Amino acid sequence: MELVIKIILDNWYNTINQTNKLLDALTDEQLMKDVAPGRNSGVYLLGHLTAVHDLMLPLLGFEERAHHDFLEIFIKSPDKSGQQMPSVADLRAAWTATNAKLEKHFKSLQPADWLMKHTSVSVEDFAKEPHRNRLNVVLGRTTHLSNHLGQLLLLK
Amino acid sequence: MELVIKIILDNWYNTINQTNKLLDALTDEQLMKDVAPGRNSGVYLLGHLTAVHDLMLPLLGFEERAHHDFLEIFIKSPDKSGQQMPSVADLRAAWTATNAKLEKHFKSLQPADWLMKHTSVSVEDFAKEPHRNRLNVVLGRTTHLSNHLGQLLLLK
Repeated sequence: MELVIKIILDNWYNTINQTNKLLDALTDEQLMKDVAPGRNSGVYLLGHLTAVHDLMLPLLGFEERAHHDFLEIFIKSPDKSGQQMPSVADLRAAWTATNAKLEKHFKSLQPADWLMKHTSVSVEDFAKEPHRNRLNVVLGRTTHLSNHLGQLLLLK
Repeated sequence: MELVIKIILDNWYNTINQTNKLLDALTDEQLMKDVAPGRNSGVYLLGHLTAVHDLMLPLLGFEERAHHDFLEIFIKSPDKSGQQMPSVADLRAAWTATNAKLEKHFKSLQPADWLMKHTSVSVEDFAKEPHRNRLNVVLGRTTHLSNHLGQLLLLK
């Protein structure tokens, strides 16, 4: 079991590291551009990813989310909706801080903790669907990150 | 263990299904376009993904790959290299057939089979790095697919 947990967590960290390497290579000006004509901007995608990862903190039972306004700006609203976005520098910092919090919590878990339910599934449903656990959240969010990383790569 | 294997395979099938739904919605003309100006075309990405999945067949110890020419055209060469590509119809069919073969083999495996080494790691290295197993290949390829799916979504 530890082996499979390691595989899933390594995949998470690798995808985060690839994203960070790209973000380090992109200037703020490049990040402000749209990934393709008329599509999401890099900065919106960075905010969107940060919002989704921030929400993982309560979803995994770790702590409250830090950016309550991000849900409205970066998940409920599309890009170019007229919402006021934080600065690129603030978004870069929020992205790094959020992933560092997740890593700290990940490292505090024992293998059995990974198979516990996440907070948006009821005890009754979890009894019937035990795959709706913390590990599944991390796996799904890695796939989500990879999807948007593919788009962010177009800014290079 | 079965639970974690199920999570990883569900993630694979979900990502394949999302890709198929997108491919069904895209016309051949849309697929011929570049995902962003000067970047890979949809048809190249479809060939690239098919080539990578075709290579999973020997990598996972299932069977020989079916498309020996795809490695040169879609992995070793970039898009617009002057290589003759198969038709969009042939690529769509190859994509579907390749994933069907993988699914057939996946369904024949027992849980312990998933933890066996893939064919590009030596017995000696696998003894030291037991995470280099079949399950890890499927996980890595799901992340790879998701990355390019994010780009293909820009064709809609």
